[in-house]
Parts: sequence; structure tokens; C-alpha cells
Amino acid sequence: MGGDFGPSVTVPAALSALAAHDDLTLILLGDQAQIDAQLSGVDSSLSQRLEIIHTSVCVENDSKPESVLRKSKESSMFLAVNLVHEGRADACVSAGNTGALLLAGRHLLKTLPGISKPAIIASVPLHAMGRSTYILDVGANLCSSARELLEFAIMGSIQASVVSGICKPRVALLNVGHEEHKGTAIIREAAQLLQQTESLNYVGFVEGNEIFTDKADVVVCDGFSGNITIKTSAGVVKVIEQMLKQSVSSSFFSRLLGLLASPLLRQLRAQIDPAQFNGASVLGLQGIIVKSHGHAHSTAFFFAIEQALKEVIDCVPSLITRRMEALQLTHGEVLATQD
Amino acid sequence: MGGDFGPSVTVPAALSALAAHDDLTLILLGDQAQIDAQLSGVDSSLSQRLEIIHTSVCVENDSKPESVLRKSKESSMFLAVNLVHEGRADACVSAGNTGALLLAGRHLLKTLPGISKPAIIASVPLHAMGRSTYILDVGANLCSSARELLEFAIMGSIQASVVSGICKPRVALLNVGHEEHKGTAIIREAAQLLQQTESLNYVGFVEGNEIFTDKADVVVCDGFSGNITIKTSAGVVKVIEQMLKQSVSSSFFSRLLGLLASPLLRQLRAQIDPAQFNGASVLGLQGIIVKSHGHAHSTAFFFAIEQALKEVIDCVPSLITRRMEALQLTHGEVLATQD
Repeated sequence: MGGDFGPSVTVPAALSALAAHDDLTLILLGDQAQIDAQLSGVDSSLSQRLEIIHTSVCVENDSKPESVLRKSKESSMFLAVNLVHEGRADACVSAGNTGALLLAGRHLLKTLPGISKPAIIASVPLHAMGRSTYILDVGANLCSSARELLEFAIMGSIQASVVSGICKPRVALLNVGHEEHKGTAIIREAAQLLQQTESLNYVGFVEGNEIFTDKADVVVCDGFSGNITIKTSAGVVKVIEQMLKQSVSSSFFSRLLGLLASPLLRQLRAQIDPAQFNGASVLGLQGIIVKSHGHAHSTAFFFAIEQALKEVIDCVPSLITRRMEALQLTHGEVLATQD
Repeated sequence: MGGDFGPSVTVPAALSALAAHDDLTLILLGDQAQIDAQLSGVDSSLSQRLEIIHTSVCVENDSKPESVLRKSKESSMFLAVNLVHEGRADACVSAGNTGALLLAGRHLLKTLPGISKPAIIASVPLHAMGRSTYILDVGANLCSSARELLEFAIMGSIQASVVSGICKPRVALLNVGHEEHKGTAIIREAAQLLQQTESLNYVGFVEGNEIFTDKADVVVCDGFSGNITIKTSAGVVKVIEQMLKQSVSSSFFSRLLGLLASPLLRQLRAQIDPAQFNGASVLGLQGIIVKSHGHAHSTAFFFAIEQALKEVIDCVPSLITRRMEALQLTHGEVLATQD
């Protein structure tokens, strides 16, 4: 039911995913009538791998996250996350309210052993090489300790390996300069922790402009900086689009320019717009949650399902747990766990 | 002596400024021989308004800021700031090491009454309307209290009035959402302070992407976020430039596109690149310091001198002091001052 378009996007995307994967079964949670309306004439080879759980309650995009726990335990979102909690589903994909999804995830699934807090990981298209860089956290938390930044680094490194197939992903910390003495005490402490962690390929600090170069595969930061970074990026792309559009009226050549550059820029913005980034995973929970953007059309939502599938196949939560256990053995210390 | 090009940029820029302003007198600090080499054949109507103070010491771009106070008291930068301190100059313009300039400024000039810490203000070209938005702090500090963010808001508001002639500049706080409950405790407290301050036209929170729209004239944030914001912006512009360049080989039309868009993007990047932003003022000190970027060519350095002139003519430090005094009377509290 989530996102701007509800079942008119999520159901066709679900059918595409079923068509692409013979061994996939999907459970749709939401208003039965609205879902059924999207299913008329669907081939039985697909519909027989589709289960519908009816609920008339859904979390609104502008609901305060806290209200989900109080008022929306019967909502499609809460029930979906609960299916993961109960082991009846391997992953949950939603285009709904991010804050609510995160809260439901933390409440029902809890964090993995060794992980203090979950993080949202986004990928941004980069350095004109057809590759993406992962950035986390982009908004699950506001502030983070050095220890939490280390956890983000480990989770991001695993995600880059699994989803992008990068061997030994280069991990960097977002900072205001490269020198050791730069940044807050937390970032400098995190740098030491990352440096000491042998399973990480830590490459040092990167500055804001270097996110878009080939310096790192994973950029680690607190959720406030990460959120501002990806939103700012989207804003710049948009302003350039507008500048090009404005130049349309000035001459024949620039009219041509505007015409030609628009799709390119629109595509780039769609990829880096935080309100639009797709398949942003919530990492660090005992279960897989992928957040599709609210504006997603069915192809985008389909990709979010694909991403969830990849994480299921590669058992990302188990990989994280094992890496954290190994770290615990190496560092010889008890790691913080939550709840 | 500062920046990548030293006197070969700063001296021609100084001569242009003298030519543009009959009542301007400039003092150049640095290596006499290198400066003289740039002055051969200069009209006496200009050179008679030019004073040279020789020193062979200069702060390197990669020096640690602290070393300036220990080792470089005879450096051209330190001596230039000291001239402002002694009242022998009305403003200092430098293209040198930012950290060192800031430290020299804080050490020699001290902060204005009511101002806890100086901030660096940058302007970014925006919303395709030929206007700029000011953003501060972009790196003088890492973290800031709510009180300090209020001071930044007041200083930014004055700067936008003076330099851009904006009446009642709209001031916003950079945050991860618009709702009152969003952001850190510090930002939420700052929002209350800004709201309560009648002399400010506070318009609420803006998100990263909204820096580039017409929502605010002044965006207030801590130096860490501000630094990452402007550097990220520059990075995105560069990646789009590269994408357009790459498309050059694909077809005639896209070749044309790349050709046409390049100057537009280069110009935009030059304006928003933090390593390149020009005329970034250090606000909040008992004296005027303008930081020109290290890569500045003489036209850019000339504009930095022009900006310093505007601040001198409008007595920006006095305006800040008066606004802080008025605030003190209204709020009926003793404001923190430093040193």
C-alpha cells in the first residue's frame, strides 16, 4: 500500500518479479479489493505464487513514526515486517514511510549481535565509470559513535561485496579534510578503529567532492551528514537541469543542448535523489528490509524486490553477524548489542 | 604571497582594484623582489597608492595552522592580519592557507562582542535566477551550539543584506526534514532561538536539495555539514561534466552537447567549488578578512578585494556588534563572548 501509487505500482512490480524468478513466492499485504483490481487476467502460473493478506489499515506518508507502534499494528507495513520476524517471509520490501518502516524494523526484528543500531545504505552513481558508491548511514540515525561508524563500515563493505560484487571494497570515512588531525574526535577515533580492523580495506578520509570519484566503494558517515550529502547532490543535479532548460530560449545551439542533456540529467537525478533512491536497504537488523522510494514506478519497485532477493540469497544478515563475531574474537572485547 | 600563484595573481588584481577605486590604498605584504617584478611600467597614479612591506617568510599551503602562531609571526599572512588589528588596514584579503588565516584572525583580532566564534560564509549560485544563497559555517568550526548557530544566522543575514542588497533575508536552518521534531537537539533548540529573534526573518528548516531553490537567502549549519555540503555540490557538478564529456564520442548530437555544456558547467563548478569559492568572508571577528581561493586568477582575486571593500564601506563588523547588542537588550541576557 506504500508510496505515492500503492498497489498500482507494487502489484505489477510483484508480478514482474514472479515472472523473472520461478522459485519466488510473494506475499502482498494490504487492501484486498485494491490488490485484486490489479490482478485481473493474470496468468495462474504467477498468481499461484502470490498470497494476499488483507488489511484495511495503512501507515500514511506523513504519519509520525512513533504512531505506528501505538496505532498501526494492523497496518500493512507493520504486518509485513512481522512476517519477517516470524520467519514466514525472508525479506520485506516497502515504498512507505521510511521512519515508520525503520521503527517497525527495530521494534520487531531487533539488531544483529554486535550491531548497535541499523543504518540505511544508499548507492550513488559515480565517477562516470558505470559504478556506484555506497554511502551509509543516510538517515536512520542522526549522530553516531566511533564504534557505530565501524559497524556501518563493516555492513557497507559486506553490502558492496554482495550487491555489486566488489572484491575487498575500499572503505572511507567522510570528513572535512584528509589529514589525520582533521574532523571531530568521533571521526578521528573511528579512523583508528577502521585502520585496526583487518577485514576492512580502509582507505582513509574522503571529502564531499570525492564521493563522486573513484576513491572509495563505501563512504561511511553519520546519518545527518549522509542525508544532507545525498539530498544536496540531488539538488545540484536539479539546478543544472534548470540552468540548461533556461538556456533553451537563448539560441538554437543551446536549445539543442537543453533538449539533449535533459534525459541524461533526469536519469542521474533519479539515481541520486534521496527521495527517489531505490533499493535503500536497512542494514543491521535480524531480517532484510529494503526501502523503495515513494515515487517509484513499477520498474523501480521491481529493482527493490531484486535487491531484497540478492540479500536473501547471500544471507547478508548472517554475513554481518559472522563478520562481527570474527571482529569480537580479534579485538577480544564484548561488542555492544542493543535490546 | 598566498594561493597557487602568489604575486603573479595578487599584484595584477591589486592594480585592477586601485584603477577601479580612486580612493583605495593597498598594502602588499611579501617578497619585495617578487612584487616589484610585477610592478614594472605601472602608472604612478596607481603605484603611489600602493605600499609594500617586505617579508621573506610565508605560510605554506600545507602548513599546520598551529605552526603559524609558533613559527610564522613574520609571515606575510600574519603581518597582514596584524595590520588590521593595529588599525593600519581596514581589511585583509588572502588566498593563503585557510586554517592559518582563521587562526591568525582569531588570535590577533578576537571575536566581536556577543559572538562566540567566527564563521566562514560562502555563497552558492542558485535556483537559476541569477541569485546566490549564503551558507555558513562552511568550515571555521566543526560543531556548533544552538547559541552559535543563532550568531551565524545573524551574521549571515547582515552579510546577505550588505553584499547582495537583500531586504529582510530569509534565514533557514539546514536539517534532515521540515517537521519540528526533525534533527538533533541542537538544531531544534536553534530553531526556537531563531524563531524568537524578531530581527531575523526565519523561515524554518531546509533540506540539502533546497539549498539550491529559492527557499532561503541564508542557510545556517555547523561547519562540518556546511563543508560537506559545498564540497559535495562541487563534486556533483564535476561528475556531470565528466558524463557529458564521455558522451562526446557517442554521436554527433551528444558531441555538440558536450561542447556546449562544458563552459556552463565549468562556470557553475568554479562558483560552488569550496576549494575555489571566492570571497569567502570570515565573519565575527573585530576586523574584516576575506579569503580568496587558492586557485584564484587575478579577476577572481580582484572580486575578493571588491567584497572586502563592500564590507569596509558598510562596516559589517559594526553592524554585527549592533545587532548583537540589540539582541542582548531584547533577550535580556548576557551573551557569551570569547577571549
